[in-house]
Amino acid sequence: MNSSIRLDKRDLILAKGAEVMTRRGYHGAGVQEIVQAAGVPKGSFYHYFASKEDFALQALQQVYQPRLQRYAQAMADPLLSPRQRILGYYGELVEHFARQERLEYHCFIGSLSFEMAELSPTLGAEVDAILQRSADILQGCLEQAQAAGELAAHEDCRNLASFISNAWQGALTRLKVSSNTRVLEDFIHRLQLLLQA
Amino acid sequence: MNSSIRLDKRDLILAKGAEVMTRRGYHGAGVQEIVQAAGVPKGSFYHYFASKEDFALQALQQVYQPRLQRYAQAMADPLLSPRQRILGYYGELVEHFARQERLEYHCFIGSLSFEMAELSPTLGAEVDAILQRSADILQGCLEQAQAAGELAAHEDCRNLASFISNAWQGALTRLKVSSNTRVLEDFIHRLQLLLQA
Repeated sequence: MNSSIRLDKRDLILAKGAEVMTRRGYHGAGVQEIVQAAGVPKGSFYHYFASKEDFALQALQQVYQPRLQRYAQAMADPLLSPRQRILGYYGELVEHFARQERLEYHCFIGSLSFEMAELSPTLGAEVDAILQRSADILQGCLEQAQAAGELAAHEDCRNLASFISNAWQGALTRLKVSSNTRVLEDFIHRLQLLLQA
Repeated sequence: MNSSIRLDKRDLILAKGAEVMTRRGYHGAGVQEIVQAAGVPKGSFYHYFASKEDFALQALQQVYQPRLQRYAQAMADPLLSPRQRILGYYGELVEHFARQERLEYHCFIGSLSFEMAELSPTLGAEVDAILQRSADILQGCLEQAQAAGELAAHEDCRNLASFISNAWQGALTRLKVSSNTRVLEDFIHRLQLLLQA
């Protein structure tokens, strides 16, 4: 029981701390603010994390591992064709954003990457690995689309996955600053054009 | 003379302060650190700027207005065809990054947008306007490419400009975290494929 409480406390600090860091940036989020948000004493932080950098690294993994798993599952859904999986997945995300009355989009990776990539190569490499893993998953699904005749045989799936993944990240940046989903609808429209046999 | 010295001091604070804010994020860059970087007393800051938010807004304009102007000029270069202008412009940027021994890419917009869009709608709107202006310039050049028969007549130039602009922003994020230009080379390769009659 004791170890499960400990695990919960670590998870709590990671979840609340990632929120604070997403909103205030890495430098703007002190350890004091992180423990306050989690409602734990400062000593707890250093019990679980060697430093703020170590915290950010573990938080990245905690936030993105389940997301990547869900993405991989969606891109392997046996009930849909590969093309349907891709268009369905992004289409649902766009609808999700469009449904929100007050559009808020938080991106932990976005907050960390610009501020910290240079100061902490470890954090930069972790963000890079997460983005690469995501592009790899998409590439796998594009290759299945190609095998199923849904995508032209000469298409370079690695290149296409890289371009689509970057366009999605860029569209999310625009969503963040405009609170307008038009740029996401543009993305879906172009995705439909790109995914053709 | 007095007024030109004042102008220089304002420009100095804007330039040095934007650097500090790019590296440390909005919350991580205090007014104290901004004036220290510029080598001016704190009073100078409040002589020119009503607040840190006002400073960031003016810094965005100071940094991006000349960049947008250069982009618009390149996209209107009468010595090149529209398609050549676009491929040439991005190609040169990628070569510029590839030539650097220790690759460093700083993005003031990237640093500000994730941290501040929600807290300051004014800053969010300014970043959005800069990104939109950039997409509009590209759209204008794509329309010229279309008129010149370099791009298919049915192509939706607004949508294509939006997608390419977002893909470029996303590629720069990957560059930032990976210090590897491969993702930019991927971008150029796809750009060549997209810009075909």
